Order: sequence, then C-alpha cells, then structure tokens
Amino acid sequence: MSFERMWRDLEPVGRSAASGGYFRAPFRSAERECASWFTEECARRSLEMSRDGNGNVVAWWRPAVSTTGGVVTGSHLDSVQDGGAYDGPLGVVSALSAVDLLRDRGFTPSKPIGVSVFVEEEGSRFGLACLGSRLMTGAVLPEAAKQLRDRGGILLPDAMVAAGLEPALGRSDLLEGVECFVELHVEQGRGLVDRDAAIGVASGIWPHGRYRFDFDGEANHAGTTRMEDRHDPMLTYAMTALAANKQARLSGARATFGRVDVRPNGTNAVPSRVSAWMDARGETSGELEAMVAERERRAAERAGRDGTSVSVRVESVSGAVSFDPGLAQRIAAQGDWPVIETMAGHDAGIVSEAGTPTAMLFVRNPTGVSHSPAEFAETADCLAGVAALADTLQRLAS
Amino acid sequence: MSFERMWRDLEPVGRSAASGGYFRAPFRSAERECASWFTEECARRSLEMSRDGNGNVVAWWRPAVSTTGGVVTGSHLDSVQDGGAYDGPLGVVSALSAVDLLRDRGFTPSKPIGVSVFVEEEGSRFGLACLGSRLMTGAVLPEAAKQLRDRGGILLPDAMVAAGLEPALGRSDLLEGVECFVELHVEQGRGLVDRDAAIGVASGIWPHGRYRFDFDGEANHAGTTRMEDRHDPMLTYAMTALAANKQARLSGARATFGRVDVRPNGTNAVPSRVSAWMDARGETSGELEAMVAERERRAAERAGRDGTSVSVRVESVSGAVSFDPGLAQRIAAQGDWPVIETMAGHDAGIVSEAGTPTAMLFVRNPTGVSHSPAEFAETADCLAGVAALADTLQRLAS
Repeated sequence: MSFERMWRDLEPVGRSAASGGYFRAPFRSAERECASWFTEECARRSLEMSRDGNGNVVAWWRPAVSTTGGVVTGSHLDSVQDGGAYDGPLGVVSALSAVDLLRDRGFTPSKPIGVSVFVEEEGSRFGLACLGSRLMTGAVLPEAAKQLRDRGGILLPDAMVAAGLEPALGRSDLLEGVECFVELHVEQGRGLVDRDAAIGVASGIWPHGRYRFDFDGEANHAGTTRMEDRHDPMLTYAMTALAANKQARLSGARATFGRVDVRPNGTNAVPSRVSAWMDARGETSGELEAMVAERERRAAERAGRDGTSVSVRVESVSGAVSFDPGLAQRIAAQGDWPVIETMAGHDAGIVSEAGTPTAMLFVRNPTGVSHSPAEFAETADCLAGVAALADTLQRLAS
Repeated sequence: MSFERMWRDLEPVGRSAASGGYFRAPFRSAERECASWFTEECARRSLEMSRDGNGNVVAWWRPAVSTTGGVVTGSHLDSVQDGGAYDGPLGVVSALSAVDLLRDRGFTPSKPIGVSVFVEEEGSRFGLACLGSRLMTGAVLPEAAKQLRDRGGILLPDAMVAAGLEPALGRSDLLEGVECFVELHVEQGRGLVDRDAAIGVASGIWPHGRYRFDFDGEANHAGTTRMEDRHDPMLTYAMTALAANKQARLSGARATFGRVDVRPNGTNAVPSRVSAWMDARGETSGELEAMVAERERRAAERAGRDGTSVSVRVESVSGAVSFDPGLAQRIAAQGDWPVIETMAGHDAGIVSEAGTPTAMLFVRNPTGVSHSPAEFAETADCLAGVAALADTLQRLAS
C-alpha cells in the first residue's frame, strides 16, 4: 500500500533523536526535504505542479478532456517545534494515497483533482499561523508579510531566498475556479474517541487568536534588592498565566501561555521584561474578545501593584469558521460519520473564509494528544481516512 | 587621574548599543578584552603576574626586600547579561588606582600587595557563581567543574581552550600565605544611601543558593485540548514563582525567579517542560533551607493538582559568611564608615570561607540598582573608594 511506504519515507525527516518529536520549520532543511519528497511523489504520479510566490503548491490530476472547476485536497508539511508526525503530513500522504486508490479503482475524474501543500501553517517560525494560505487568499497583505521575522531576526523573503525560492508574496490564483476544498487531518482532541468513530467531518472552527503580552519592569540584583523595592515583571506574568487558565476553565474556552521570553534571563537578576504569548479560543468572537479584554484589564491592575507595566499586541485573530453545511452533510452521509466542531485553526478555515466551499475530514487520535511527540493515529484508522477521502473525491469530481 | 582614564578605556567593552547594558561572559571576547586590558595595565605598572589554571590572576607589587605574607585586593571583570558597568570592574580599577595613589604618596610596602581578578564570578555562563575563586580554594572540585556546560552545551575546559588558555582546573596557590584579602565593590542596595555615607565596610554575607526547578507536564495542542485534560507545567511554575515572592516578602528574605526555559516554547502548544531557577537568600542557613523546602513541598502539592511533576536540584549553596570582625572594625575606624551586611555573594566570601582574613569595602550606589544597565556610582564616590582602599592597603602592608 502506497500510504505505508510514503509514511516510512517521511518518518525520519526532522525527527529529534532525544524526544522523538519533529521540527519541520518552514524554509529550513527538514521542511524543504519534505517539500522535495512531495515534488518527487507528484512526478511519480505524473501530476502537474502549480506553485505560487508564497511557497504553496498544488499538484493536478487533470482529466483527458479539459474542464473548469475542480476539487482540491491537501494539508501542510511544516510542524510545531517538537511536534508529532501526523499534524499536516497525514493530510498530504492521505491525499496522494487517495489518488492512488482512485486510479486502482479505475476511476476517471471528470473534473481536475488537486493535491495541495500550504507553507507555514503552524506559524512556528514567523508567528502567523496559516501564513501560506492567508497570503494566497489575500487575508494577509504582502506588505505585512515582508516585515515578518523569525526569532533569529531573518525576514520571511530572505528565508525563502535562502531556501532557493523566488518569493512573490501576495494573493495567488492557485485555487482559482476550484469548486471545493477538502482537508484531511488527524483529530487533535477526543471527539472521535468519545464517539467511537474512526472518521469525522468538521462543522466549523472556533474563533481564535494569538496575543503578545509584554510585561516591563526593572532589572535588579536578585540578592540585594528588597522585595518591596522591586518592579518584577515575572510576578505580573505569573498571575496573568494563572488567571487566564482559570477563566478559560470556568467558561469552557481555551487560553494557553506556552511561549515565554525573559530578559535578561539570568538566575541572579530580577528580569527587566517578560514577553509571553497567549493563545486564546472561544466559542464565539464575542466570547474571545471579552476574554482577552478581561486578561488585559486584570494584567494592568496587577502591574499597578507590582510597579510594572503591560502592553498587549494582537498577533493574529481568526474569526469563527462555519464549513459549508451541505457539503459536510453529504460527506458525512457516505459513512454515517459524526459531524464535530474543532478549536484548531487550519488552512481549510482560511480557504473557507475566502469563499470556496470547504470541508474537513478528521481521523481518530486515540489519546487526543497533538503538537507533541505523543501525537498518534492507528494505521487502520489512517487507511480508513484514505478510503473516506477517496470516496469523497470520487463523488465531488464525478 | 588614572581612575578616570581606566574607566573610559573599559566603558565600551561588551556594551549593548540597544540597552546600554554589558555582557562580559567569561572566556568570550568582551571579557577576554577586559582581561587583556588588565594585563596591559599591570605591565604598565611593572606588576608581576601570577596565573592559575582556573583563569584567575594576581598581579604583585613586591617590596625590594622579599618578605612573606602580603595583602591582596581585587574583584572580577565578567558581568551578568545586560548588567551594569560597576559590578566587578569598579573593584579592579580601584585596586590599580590605589596602587597608583600609594606610589604617588611615596609609600613603600613592606609586604607584597597583589591585585586580583577572579573569573566567572557571576555564574552567568556556567551557572555556578564565584567559579574561579571556588576552584582556587577547593570549594568546587575540578571533577565537577569539568562537567559544567554553558547554555550552548560547551564544556568549561573547552571554553577556556577556545579562549587561548591552558586549563588546569583545581585548587591553586595564588593566595597562599596571603595575610588578608580586601574586595572593593559597588553597593548593590541602598544601605549607604540610607546612611548618607559614600563608603561602607561589610560585616558579612547572607547565605544564599541557586535551585533549579524542573516542572514536567505533557505537550499538547493549545486549542483542542480541554482545560481539564491538560498537564500544563506553566501553571505549576507560575504558582511557585508567586508563592516564592510572597514568602520572601513576608519573612524579610529574598527569592527570585529570573531565569526560565520553556519547551517547546511555541505559542500554540501546552509546554512539556518549564525549567526555572530560584535565587534564594536568607538571614540564616536554617531560614534559607526552610524556605527552599517549603517551596518544594508546595510546588509538589500544586503539581498534584495540575497533573504535572516537579523536581528540584541544588545548583549551588553558599553558607553565611562573617568577615573578620577585627579587620572590619579597624578598616571602618579609618573613616568612621558604617559596617553593613550584604545579601550578594562575592569572591571575598569564598576567600573568607577558606580561612584568609577578609574584608569588603562598598561604594555608594545612589539608586541601589544593580545587575542592570542602570547600575551607577558617582565619580566622587568612586574616588573616595580609591582613597579608602589605598588607606587600607597602606595600613595593612606597612
């Protein structure tokens, strides 16, 4: 089976020997190796490659008689730092496997079928999730993207040039005229485990955003400075992280401080600045906005007591996404698969927002763990995902 | 005046244009430039250099007639990251200036006078404060020091070799037979400001230590993982940092979390591990131990609620230091200077613990701020420090 062979090929790329986790940062060697692998797999299948100036790719299986429209499926090949093997690659490998399965079945599409890979879906390098698809649809303007820097200070266009690409950032016609987009993805929660189902269909995505909190105080000696003379931003941060967790827990929302940068970060110095990023998600945009406003207000209040200050910058916000309900119902009916909502952002959300009817298929994740080396899906469930995707493409491209 | 010329020479070395702060990490270029500067200044004065295999130096002004004993004064040239100009270099520049002043006075010592520089006093690179003096006295064993790595994984001996040194770590005879050691240092609190005095003499140093807390949880997706399903070590850390501050504030002790390392440190991932370093100081060793034990106990308790775990490792502990009371009284009597205690560790504490009668002179710091670019002393106070040190050396070496 082609799925298992492809999975084995990708398995060692960008894997840490220490943790078993992956880091496939966009435009760095491991992710570029995955991109080359994708090009080879497409060549092997005689798919026709289309690329845009943002680093996104669609590989086409075109019918003998040229037609308009088309169906695209795919995902991404980049990962978070120390992430799992499935988030992204499962959708790409399943898409190629579905093409193989349809060809084995002797199916001839009457509309083009495309397999897509979007870059920097995780935002792990340049801080903005779904960067490739957002540039493609115009949701992020090229002027803004040109200013994005990674943690080492490298600008996005320079990173692309260093990877041998010719950046031409901005809206592209990669999906122009496409009738629908389907993304298959490993589930990142326990929705399917709880429902005892291998496959599910997404109804929509919660609104979510990333917010940078800068807590400023005064560096000082950790031994000689009296506690009452300090302006320690670590305290303001710590209270904010605890309160965000509590608020999300009580309201059924999500709030996470997973990234922190301390200056000067010395054991014997009170910090001068703590920068911390909040990932927040709520059922509605109103709930999300209220949650962020409340955190900002309470952080400022505590900063007043700590003799510090706080400023909050919105790094990205994605509104609620409702996938095409008719499409979801038709797909779900193929296998009596449950329709579930998700709190994770995906390129499918960006494509949907831009007006293309979009759907997502989820594959069961036995532990629900994701963005972690422990992320997993059973091979049998992955193969069920390939079959479900093939059925879906066959129906949509007939 | 030689003091001001030397101060100007050192001023640009290792200074950040952005913050105005210094980073003179041991065995890296800025600190090595300071070390070369010191060698040149000693040559200019025909002082006789003695070095040990730990990177420490003493430059001797020997009487015409060879005698035993001797008096050594000095400090260090390394800094914390983004630290001030005074912490360390003030003691070295003042020592050389005091030699100049004594020679201007026509003073001829009847005992050798040494000017010392000890390496890695701050522990900013290898994590262990007063590393040079601890190795010299045997307070740290060479077997342990050989295993020390910086944040980039470089071993201490390799860092020394890369800096052109020939490491021979371990106890050395640099201060052998020395009758007393005097360290001049900028004050790192407001003790002298409160007493309206330019100069003070130290009575002793509080016991203090560095403790590494590793909070372990489970990496997971920041959006899809329900709050109640998380094992988020950031929460356990945040509570620990707040509680440590509160305990120190209420008990008159000191506790600081100034260094944090998060894995994987991604915005959209619940962390798998938060490592955080506590700098703690108390009036007595008993108080210090009780404070650390309480933090460890409460962190474990909270970890139980967060579904995380915590382990604490002692990185270094220094017991209470009482400087030679007779020596302190004799020095203080020269200028009716106040005798004050300090919470900051110094090489003088290590030398004192090893049995050499030791004293410290402090120079007033108008804001009390230290380990920060804002660290400062007025030139008039610095010159008063030079005179006080010269008077002290003259008396001790007569």
